[in-house]
Amino acid sequence: METLDPTDWGEFARIAHKAVDEAIARTAALRDRPVWRPMPPAARKALRQPLPVEPTPLDHVVDEAWDTILAYPMGNTHPRFWMWYMGASSLTGALADFLAAADGSNLGGGDHAAAECERQVIDWLRQIAGFPEGSSGTLTSGGSEANLIGLTVARNRAIPGIDLREGGLAALPRPLRFYASDQVHGCHQKAVELLGLGNRALRRIPTGPDCRMDVEALARAIEEDRAQGWQPACVIATAGTVNTGAIDPLPAMADLCRDRGLWLHVDGCIGALTRLSPRHAHLLDGIDRADSLALDPHKSLHVPFEAGCVLVRDARAHLGSFALHSEYLDPALRGIAAGGWLLDLGLQTSRGFRALKIWMMLREHGTARLGRIIGRNIDQARRLAALAQAHPRLTLLSPVTLDIACFRYDPGGLDPSALAGLNAEIMMRLQEDGTVAFSDTTVHGEHGLRAAICNHRTTDEDIGMALAAVVRTGDALATTHAPTHASPA
Amino acid sequence: METLDPTDWGEFARIAHKAVDEAIARTAALRDRPVWRPMPPAARKALRQPLPVEPTPLDHVVDEAWDTILAYPMGNTHPRFWMWYMGASSLTGALADFLAAADGSNLGGGDHAAAECERQVIDWLRQIAGFPEGSSGTLTSGGSEANLIGLTVARNRAIPGIDLREGGLAALPRPLRFYASDQVHGCHQKAVELLGLGNRALRRIPTGPDCRMDVEALARAIEEDRAQGWQPACVIATAGTVNTGAIDPLPAMADLCRDRGLWLHVDGCIGALTRLSPRHAHLLDGIDRADSLALDPHKSLHVPFEAGCVLVRDARAHLGSFALHSEYLDPALRGIAAGGWLLDLGLQTSRGFRALKIWMMLREHGTARLGRIIGRNIDQARRLAALAQAHPRLTLLSPVTLDIACFRYDPGGLDPSALAGLNAEIMMRLQEDGTVAFSDTTVHGEHGLRAAICNHRTTDEDIGMALAAVVRTGDALATTHAPTHASPA
Ligand SMILES: Cc1ncc(COP(=O)(O)O)c(C=O)c1O
Ligand SMILES: Cc1ncc(COP(=O)(O)O)c(C=O)c1O
Repeated sequence: METLDPTDWGEFARIAHKAVDEAIARTAALRDRPVWRPMPPAARKALRQPLPVEPTPLDHVVDEAWDTILAYPMGNTHPRFWMWYMGASSLTGALADFLAAADGSNLGGGDHAAAECERQVIDWLRQIAGFPEGSSGTLTSGGSEANLIGLTVARNRAIPGIDLREGGLAALPRPLRFYASDQVHGCHQKAVELLGLGNRALRRIPTGPDCRMDVEALARAIEEDRAQGWQPACVIATAGTVNTGAIDPLPAMADLCRDRGLWLHVDGCIGALTRLSPRHAHLLDGIDRADSLALDPHKSLHVPFEAGCVLVRDARAHLGSFALHSEYLDPALRGIAAGGWLLDLGLQTSRGFRALKIWMMLREHGTARLGRIIGRNIDQARRLAALAQAHPRLTLLSPVTLDIACFRYDPGGLDPSALAGLNAEIMMRLQEDGTVAFSDTTVHGEHGLRAAICNHRTTDEDIGMALAAVVRTGDALATTHAPTHASPA
Repeated sequence: METLDPTDWGEFARIAHKAVDEAIARTAALRDRPVWRPMPPAARKALRQPLPVEPTPLDHVVDEAWDTILAYPMGNTHPRFWMWYMGASSLTGALADFLAAADGSNLGGGDHAAAECERQVIDWLRQIAGFPEGSSGTLTSGGSEANLIGLTVARNRAIPGIDLREGGLAALPRPLRFYASDQVHGCHQKAVELLGLGNRALRRIPTGPDCRMDVEALARAIEEDRAQGWQPACVIATAGTVNTGAIDPLPAMADLCRDRGLWLHVDGCIGALTRLSPRHAHLLDGIDRADSLALDPHKSLHVPFEAGCVLVRDARAHLGSFALHSEYLDPALRGIAAGGWLLDLGLQTSRGFRALKIWMMLREHGTARLGRIIGRNIDQARRLAALAQAHPRLTLLSPVTLDIACFRYDPGGLDPSALAGLNAEIMMRLQEDGTVAFSDTTVHGEHGLRAAICNHRTTDEDIGMALAAVVRTGDALATTHAPTHASPA
C-alpha cells in the first residue's frame, strides 16, 4: 500500500546515516568555514521550483538540500557569530529533534511519556529559576511567546472580579498600563498590541547610563498614571537587555510591585539561565520574586530552535488564562486522554515534543558544565571590552554585565554620521569576508558594533582575532577612502 | 576546550546511527505494537530525577530515552490512531528536523537559504490553496497560531483609519463582533480572548443537521448586531470542523462578506489540503476567496509537529499587523541581515526551520501522492460510515464529508446517559487493549465515538477490524454487566 513511509527501509537507513555523517563532518569543520557567505544566484535559482507534483527519490532530495539549502546557513553555529543573541545549536539537540519527530507525540496533552518529560523539564527549569514548587510553566516557541503568555496572565488578573476572557477589555473600568524600560525587547510591544492594550499602554521608563531601569522614575510614573485614571497593572523587568545585556534592578522592582500590588514579569530570555554560573548568579538576585518569568533554552542552553519557557508562580492564574473545555476534549481518568491538557497553559493546541532536546542537553552535560560555558561567554565579553578599552582607536559604548559588549572603531575627527557609516561598513566587510559577524546598534544615541557572545564554540582567541580584524578593516577604510555606505542611523 | 560538541565525533556518529536504526525499526514495526499503552509506574518514576548537575555519557542518555520515554508515545503514529485530528508523522520529516537543527538557522530573518526555503514553501502552499500571487504567508507552530494571526489582521483592519496597534481597543468607536459556527474550534475562542475582544465578541451561529453554518442566520445576526451598536468585523468559516469534518458553505459566506465588507477568515486546518485530492477538491470551492486562511501541514501532510501556515491575501495588511523596527534590527542591504524579516509576519522573534520538513515531504512525495493519501482517508471514513449504517447495533451520528466519522454502538433499550457510558467504556477498553484509538464526542446533543482518520498508514482492513472490535466489545459489555464508567457528557 502507498504510504509516506520508506518503501525500502534499508535505503532510508543508508540515506539517514549519510546525512548524519555529513552533519557531523560539517559541524566538526565549522571553524574552518566562513561565518557566513551569501547564497550564490545559482543556488537561489535552483531553489525556486514549481510545486512538485511527482515524487523524487529521497536521496536526490537530501543531496539537493545539502547543495542548495544547507550550504548557506545563517551562520549562528559558527564560533564567531555574535550578531544576534541566539544559541549556536548542538548535535545532541538535533538528534533529540529527530527522536522527538519519530516518536511523533502531540504535547497538547494526554497520558504519555513525552508529556511527563515536559513536566520534568519544566520542573528542572523552575528549580534553576528559583521558583517555588507548585509554580506552573510551559515550553513555548521562544522567548517572545513566553513573554506574551506572562503578559496575558498579568492582563487577565489586573482587576480582580472582572472576567476579561468573557467580556474583553471593554469590561474594564479603567485602561491598564504596563511598564518597561526603554531598553525593552520589541516582542513586548508586539504582545501589548496583540492583547488589545495597544503600544500606548506600555509606558517606557528611562534608563541610566548603565541601561538599567530608573526605579524612582518608575515609581513616579505609576503615581502619575494612577492620578490620570490608568490602572497600573504590570511591570516588565528585563534581566539581560538585548542591546547591552543590562539587568534591571530586580529587588527594588520586586519591592515596588509588592507594595503597589502590581504583577512583576521578568524577561529573562538573556539572563535567567546565568543563574547556572555560580560566579554570576548573584547578578540575577530577585528574579525568583517574579510573578512570571520568561527564559529561553534555545539561547544559552544551545538547544536547536525552538524552545522557550514561561514560569508562572500562581498556577491557577496561569491555567485560568488559557484553559478551555470542548466537547471532544473532555477530561478523562483512563486511556490516552488521561493526564491533563498541556494546551491549557498557552496559545497552541497541537504542541511538539520540544522537551526532549532540553532533557537530553541537561542530562548529557549537566548544569555545572552549562554554567561554565555561560560564565565563559561573560568572561569573553569582558575580555572584548578590556581589549577595546585598551586600544587607542576602539571605544567601549556601555558597561558589560553579561555576554554582550558594544564598542566602536573611532579613528578620530569624524562626525557622528560618518562614524556610524564607517562602523557599519566594517561590520559588513567582516560579514562578507566571513571573519566574524557583529551587529550594529545604538546605545543611548551612540552608534557602534555589538557582540552578543552566546556561543559554546567561541574561544578566547576568537575574541582577540575578531577585534584585530575590526581594527585592520577600520584602519584600511579610514585611510584609503571615505565610507560610501549610507548610515543606518 | 569544553564545548557542547561531542568530544569524540566518532562516538557521536555511532550513537546517532544506532538511534536512527532503532527509530526505523520501531516505525517499521508500528503495526505490530499496541496503539497505546499506559506508562508503567516504574518508567514514570525513573523519569522523575533531580536536576542533573554532572554529565552523563550521551549513549546512556539515549538508552534511557528509549526505555523510559520513547517506549510510551501518544500513539498517533500507529495506523489505528484516529482519536484526535493530527498527523501520523514520518521519518523523512524526522530526518528534516535533524538537518534543520544541525543547520541551526534562525528563520526570524536574514539572508540565508533557510529563509529562502520558507519563502518557497509558502509559495507552494499558496498555490495549493489557490491564493493569488503576491499574497503573504508564514509558517507557524500550528493551526491555532495560524488562526490567531488571521484574526489579528482582521481585528486590526476592522475600522479603517484607526491605529489599533498604537491605541488598542480603546481607540475603537464601537465594539467589534466576529462570527463563527457553533462547531468552531476552541482555538478561536482563545484567540478572541487573547486579542482582548473577549469570548462575547465571538458570536456563534447555529448549524443545521449537517453541522454547516446557517448562512441566513449569519446574515440576520450581522444585521441585528449592527442595529445594536456592534461593528461586525470578521466571519470565520470552518473548512473541515474538528467534530465531524463539516465544511461551511464557503461561496455563500464569501459573497456575504464581500457584500457587507467583512473579513473572511477560513480555518482550513482540516480541510484546506484536501484540495490536493482531485476527487474531493470541489468540496473546498470558495476557499480561495478568503482574506486569510489557516492550514496545517502537521496534519494531512504528516510532517512532524510543529508546522502550521497562515496565508493572507493582502500582504500589506499582514505586515502592517506585525512589523516592528528596533535599533538592533535595522534593515540592511548587504550582509547577513539583508533579505528582510520573516518575524514581521507573526508573533515570534526567533523562528525554527520548519520549512525544511515541508519542503522535503513535498519534494519526496509530490502533491499527487499526498492527494491520493488524503483521498484514501476520506474513502476510509466513508467505508466506516457505510459499515456502521449497515450494522444493526451501530448508528451513524452525522454525514461524512471528509475523513471524520461519528457513530455509536447501540444495543437498544438504554437511556442516553447509559448509552454514553457504554460507548465511553468501549472507547476506553479499545485504547487500553491497544486495538484502536477513538475519541468520544457529542454531535448536536448525541454522544458517540469519533474516528478522525488522518493517517497515511491506515489500511482499509484497519477500518473493518476496528469496527468489529467495537461491536465485539460493545456486545460483551452490554450483555455481561451494566457500564460502571461515569458518563463524560
Ligand atoms: C531580552 C529578550 N527578550 C525576548 C527575546 C525574544 O526571544 P525569542 O527570539 O526566543 O522569541 C529576545 C531575543 O533575542 C531577547 O533578547
Ligand atoms: C478545525 C481546526 N482548527 C484549528 C485546529 C488547531 O490546530 P493545531 O492543533 O495545529 O493548533 C484544529 C486542530 O485539530 C482543528 O481541527
